[in-house]
Amino acid sequence: MPQHNPVMTISELQSFMDQAFPQMKDRDGQMVIDALGPMTATVQMGFAAHNLRPGGTLSGPSMMGLADYAMYAVLLAHIGPVALAVTTNLNINFLQKPGPSTLYGEARLLKLGRRLAVGEVSLLQEGVDGPVAHVTLTYSIPPQLE
Amino acid sequence: MPQHNPVMTISELQSFMDQAFPQMKDRDGQMVIDALGPMTATVQMGFAAHNLRPGGTLSGPSMMGLADYAMYAVLLAHIGPVALAVTTNLNINFLQKPGPSTLYGEARLLKLGRRLAVGEVSLLQEGVDGPVAHVTLTYSIPPQLE
Amino acid sequence: MPQHNPVMTISELQSFMDQAFPQMKDRDGQMVIDALGPMTATVQMGFAAHNLRPGGTLSGPSMMGLADYAMYAVLLAHIGPVALAVTTNLNINFLQKPGPSTLYGEARLLKLGRRLAVGEVSLLQEGVDGPVAHVTLTYSIPPQLE
Amino acid sequence: MPQHNPVMTISELQSFMDQAFPQMKDRDGQMVIDALGPMTATVQMGFAAHNLRPGGTLSGPSMMGLADYAMYAVLLAHIGPVALAVTTNLNINFLQKPGPSTLYGEARLLKLGRRLAVGEVSLLQEGVDGPVAHVTLTYSIPPQLE
Repeated sequence: MPQHNPVMTISELQSFMDQAFPQMKDRDGQMVIDALGPMTATVQMGFAAHNLRPGGTLSGPSMMGLADYAMYAVLLAHIGPVALAVTTNLNINFLQKPGPSTLYGEARLLKLGRRLAVGEVSLLQEGVDGPVAHVTLTYSIPPQLE
Repeated sequence: MPQHNPVMTISELQSFMDQAFPQMKDRDGQMVIDALGPMTATVQMGFAAHNLRPGGTLSGPSMMGLADYAMYAVLLAHIGPVALAVTTNLNINFLQKPGPSTLYGEARLLKLGRRLAVGEVSLLQEGVDGPVAHVTLTYSIPPQLE
Repeated sequence: MPQHNPVMTISELQSFMDQAFPQMKDRDGQMVIDALGPMTATVQMGFAAHNLRPGGTLSGPSMMGLADYAMYAVLLAHIGPVALAVTTNLNINFLQKPGPSTLYGEARLLKLGRRLAVGEVSLLQEGVDGPVAHVTLTYSIPPQLE
Repeated sequence: MPQHNPVMTISELQSFMDQAFPQMKDRDGQMVIDALGPMTATVQMGFAAHNLRPGGTLSGPSMMGLADYAMYAVLLAHIGPVALAVTTNLNINFLQKPGPSTLYGEARLLKLGRRLAVGEVSLLQEGVDGPVAHVTLTYSIPPQLE
C-alpha cells in the first residue's frame, strides 16, 4: 500500500537514483536531491554548458529531464526503490526563459494510487519571480505492487 | 501592464461574471467566487443534479466548467473586466471520483504575460483527502492590451 | 486481449452508450455514432441551444463532452461493453471558435494496452477548414481485463 | 499572412535549422528533414548511444527534442526563417518503449494563426506497429509578424 510519507532517506534515494540513471552524472547537469517530505521532493540540476540553447537559455529537453527525475524521485521515495514505474504522460508549460544557472525542481504528488501516480513539478531559479516552467506527469506503476 | 494583485473586488468580479456567463446560474451548478488574493482565486460550484453521471459522480465537463470559470475569474481579477481572453489549452488529470456535493476550484496564476496567461486549478471537496482533479490552463489575451 | 478491430457493431455500441449515458440524450446535444473502423470512430453531437456561450460559440465543456464520448465509444468498440474504463487525463487545444451547428468528433486509438488506452479526437464542423479543437485522452482500464 | 503551403525548400530549411541549432549535430542524434508538405514535415533523428536509458530505450528528453525540432521545422517552413517562435506548451503521451534505432517525427500543423501555432507530432520507428509516442505542441509567434 502506498504511503503518504517517504519510506527512504535522501541518501538512500540518491544512491539508488545514481545507479539507476548513471548518465545523469556524466552528461546532463548533475542531479542532487535536496529535500524529501510528505508527498514532496526538491531536486536541483547543476548548470551544464551543453544544456544551453542559442540566446543563453536552458534547453527544453533538459528542463523535462529535471522534471521527470524529480517526479521519479518523489514517487520512489514513497513506494520504495523496487518499482519499474514508467512515465506515461508529461505536460509542460514554458513560462519564462531560464538563464544559465542551477535549476530547481519542486515536485509534489497529487495522487499516489496503486496503478497510477500523478504529480506536478515547478521549475525555479534563484532571483527569478515565479516558476520558469510548470510540469504535470503521470507514472504507471507496474502490477506487482497491486 | 498586468498586475500581481487583483484590481477588482469580489463583488465587482462576481457581477461581471454573472453578466458574462448568465447560463452558469441557470444550468450548471451556481458559481460563487469565494476569495481573491495575489495571483489566486477560489470559486465554488454548487451541486446540481444534472451534473451527475452514473455512479453518483460529477461529470468531467462540469469539472472542466468550474476550472475554466475559476481561471477566468483569477485572470480578469488581475487584468480588469475589459478583456476578451480565450482559453487555448486545458489539461486535466482526474485523480479521484468527486461525490455529489459542492466542488471548490482553487486557481493560481503561474504566469501573467501580455499575450498569454497560464494557471493551475486544484478541484477539491470537503472531507476528501487531496484534490479530485488538477487542471492547467492557458488563456490568450487579445492584442488591445499589448 | 484487446483487438485492433471493433468487436461491436454501431447499433450494439449505440444501444450500450444510450443506456450508460442517458443524460446525453436529454441534456447535451444528442450523440450519434456515425462510423466505426479499425482503431477509429466518428461521433456527431447535434446542436443544442444550451451549449451556446456568448458570441454564438459552443461551450468548452460541451466540446469536451463530445471528445470524451467519442473516445469512450472507440475504446468500448474494441474491448467490448463490459469495462468500467475511466478517463484519467484529457488535454484539449482550442483552435477555432465552433459555430452553432453539429460538431463531429473523429476519434483514433493511439494505444490500446491492457491497463491504459490513449487516443486523439479531432473536433470538426462542416464548412470549416481544419479542426476547431484537438484532444488527447487517456483511459485507465480496470484490472479484471488483465 | 501565414501560408498553408511551405515557403521554404527542404535544403533551405535544413541549412537554417543547422545554423539555429548547431548542438543538434554534435550532441543529440543528428536531425535530418526528410519531407515537407502542406502543413506537414517529417524529421528523422539518427540513433546516438548517449540517448539511451537503462533497458536499451531512448530517453524521454531525446524524444521531446525530436518532437520540438519537427514542430519548429514545419512551422518555419510555413512562416519563413525570420521568426523567433518559442514553445509555450508541450504534451507528450509515451505509448511504447522506443528501441535503439532511428526515430521518425511526423509533424502536422493543426492551426497556423498569427499569434499561436498548434501541431501534433507522431514518433515512429521502423518495424513497430503504431506510434511510440504522440506529442502536441503550441508555439507563440512574435508580434512582428502580426
